[in-house]
Amino acid sequence: MSYDFSEMIDRRHTNSVKWDVKDNELPMWVADMDFRTAPAIVDAIKRKADTGIFGYEEVPDAYFKAVQHWYATEHNWTPQTDWMRFVTGVVPAISSAVRRISHVGDNVLVQAPVYNIFYNSIVNNGRHVLSNDLHFQDGTYVIDWDDLTAKLADPLTTMMILCNPHNPVGKVWQPAELSRLADLAAANHVTVFSDEIHGDITDAGHGYTPFASVSDTAANHSITAVSPSKTFNVAALHAATLIIPNENLRNSVDRGINSEELAEPNAFAIPGTIAAYTQGAEWVHELNATITANKQTLTTFIQQHLPKLQVIAGHATYLVWIDCQAITHDTQALCDVIRQETGLFITAGAVYGGDGHDFVRINVACPAERLQDGLDRLVQGIHAFQAK
Amino acid sequence: MSYDFSEMIDRRHTNSVKWDVKDNELPMWVADMDFRTAPAIVDAIKRKADTGIFGYEEVPDAYFKAVQHWYATEHNWTPQTDWMRFVTGVVPAISSAVRRISHVGDNVLVQAPVYNIFYNSIVNNGRHVLSNDLHFQDGTYVIDWDDLTAKLADPLTTMMILCNPHNPVGKVWQPAELSRLADLAAANHVTVFSDEIHGDITDAGHGYTPFASVSDTAANHSITAVSPSKTFNVAALHAATLIIPNENLRNSVDRGINSEELAEPNAFAIPGTIAAYTQGAEWVHELNATITANKQTLTTFIQQHLPKLQVIAGHATYLVWIDCQAITHDTQALCDVIRQETGLFITAGAVYGGDGHDFVRINVACPAERLQDGLDRLVQGIHAFQAK
Ligand SMILES: Cc1ncc(COP(=O)(O)O)c(C=O)c1O
Ligand SMILES: Cc1ncc(COP(=O)(O)O)c(C=O)c1O
Repeated sequence: MSYDFSEMIDRRHTNSVKWDVKDNELPMWVADMDFRTAPAIVDAIKRKADTGIFGYEEVPDAYFKAVQHWYATEHNWTPQTDWMRFVTGVVPAISSAVRRISHVGDNVLVQAPVYNIFYNSIVNNGRHVLSNDLHFQDGTYVIDWDDLTAKLADPLTTMMILCNPHNPVGKVWQPAELSRLADLAAANHVTVFSDEIHGDITDAGHGYTPFASVSDTAANHSITAVSPSKTFNVAALHAATLIIPNENLRNSVDRGINSEELAEPNAFAIPGTIAAYTQGAEWVHELNATITANKQTLTTFIQQHLPKLQVIAGHATYLVWIDCQAITHDTQALCDVIRQETGLFITAGAVYGGDGHDFVRINVACPAERLQDGLDRLVQGIHAFQAK
Repeated sequence: MSYDFSEMIDRRHTNSVKWDVKDNELPMWVADMDFRTAPAIVDAIKRKADTGIFGYEEVPDAYFKAVQHWYATEHNWTPQTDWMRFVTGVVPAISSAVRRISHVGDNVLVQAPVYNIFYNSIVNNGRHVLSNDLHFQDGTYVIDWDDLTAKLADPLTTMMILCNPHNPVGKVWQPAELSRLADLAAANHVTVFSDEIHGDITDAGHGYTPFASVSDTAANHSITAVSPSKTFNVAALHAATLIIPNENLRNSVDRGINSEELAEPNAFAIPGTIAAYTQGAEWVHELNATITANKQTLTTFIQQHLPKLQVIAGHATYLVWIDCQAITHDTQALCDVIRQETGLFITAGAVYGGDGHDFVRINVACPAERLQDGLDRLVQGIHAFQAK
């Protein structure tokens, strides 16, 4: 490895949301990694800092070319640069698109259990959440196509938010699934917002497929959001890109992001992203190998020490979804005990909806040494819970 | 002077919105300065860059204490830190407050000619602009109190956006005016959003008065927005602060900025602002002296070379408002000719509403040498216009 993913960096008292915990606590919750980002990004930010002038910033062609280069080389998809728009974040863009694409009172379809903030973007804008719950069978999640077909056909359903790959279940959706989904959505005049923020973080040989790349139908009925945020651990760079092949749809979304000031980059978003997408590939590949190894460590450990728990085998994200139903159907109570007894802070699955109350989500994007500390606390916490 | 405000920095091809002009053009339009920011800010950004981890960032107490310190030492007002909320920008915060405080179809009062983006925040949210036009008399602007009283009393008027000090007319509102305004607003249940982004940039001896500081009534019925953005030339730092003494109002606005993701700082906003507000005072004082000198240079030059133009004597902002009605009532046509003939890019006043079509706005926040270039082009352009 050329990069060091083993350094134990102390992130306490650095204004980190993740690390705003008590001194004895170990946070493995929010999707934020304990690794330093790729050096090229730090260099680019420092070069921009050296200019000393941070006035209103615009998005140069080089930015869009960098996004295109990344998707062409990493994901075998070459979106046109004129399909792209800069935005300050994926979630703000989802909220904005919900307001532009659907109407108050409409249904916005999601697939629970899913990233909880999707619900906020829907409900805070006066739309209804309609969930095509993912079906948990044989230790994995599958789409319930009959249910999906019916819910997309509901005339009040005008938009769907797809999580591709899926947080929290770690599923990499396959081209055939995405293509079938696109046909169904298009037939029912439903616009698909494909949140692909986790797309770069996959196990070797399990690369994700951009939704818009599977067919013209998918491209024409979708808004795709990508970002270096999760990939490079730069959530606070506030940089993301919307890719919208359909001109009409693009103009509509464009109007929303501009009038809501989501289209204006901060001084570091542009140079940081360009550095990431043009010089960061090797760093990401090594990161992915590290995460794959951490997931294996966790899985083996749980099989040995906590055989009642079942790790859901997912090939994407650094978030591991663990079935605890043999112990409890209320993992919030479980997580509370774990945190209280051991200081380990993981996420109880209920916030993601669906069958989430049976699950916990653990963030393994940290040095192996810290992961081991977390696993030891997990065992201790679960035993404490069982003893109660 | 300890700082250098004379360096001619080449900002072309740096992704600067201001400098996205042809090679022969000289931009003196948007409110963005051609000076490097205070060195302490650059240092703080570089120190943050060196940490290499840019995950989700929260706002520490030290941030609010820095804001408080600045207002106490620079403006003789000590707002409580628990009245404050971080936001990513003043304009997004105005838009969000418009949505929270007023209803669709309501009137939001402004005082034209005023910063044009206020109109967007009102109109894009389905509210109506109601203008209490400022009255131009004896070479200065005054409030038309009868008109203001009537318009605040309209039951559909629920909010007012005050520009304090005023862009583009450069007026520093006086305590007695602000206090009278507060009483009128309160009596009519109108919430005042006081945009104080230009408050730090004033001539010596003409300091501005924070609206909320003039009386309990003003404090209780207002939302104040402040930012290092204009002061330190850090628009792309994306940092601003709302100050809302009234708890009810604060909770309401808080809900809006949180659900719209305006409350999350990028990685550099916090350290940059703390450095500005704790180490930047001397830099700002020298900046103000530079701007005062530039305004004098411009005024003297125009008296000598363009006696038909009248510079409006304002003590705030680096934006100079110039009455051109002796030449034309359509300064857009004038500005088009000036730009075409000389490359000088200044702002035609019509966008600000009211009597703006008689005026131009010139940004003098640049080295004296560049200002002189601009003034020479201005003479040439106006002569070209008159010759047509
Ligand atoms: C699926 C998904 N989308 C979006 C986000 C957050 O995106 P942003 O920080 O750009 O708003 C996350 C963060 O965990 C996520 O998991
Ligand atoms: C009165 C006023 N408010 C707000 C802004 C912009 O604020 P921000 O960039 O924080 O949205 C400007 C910029 O010129 C301004 O003149």
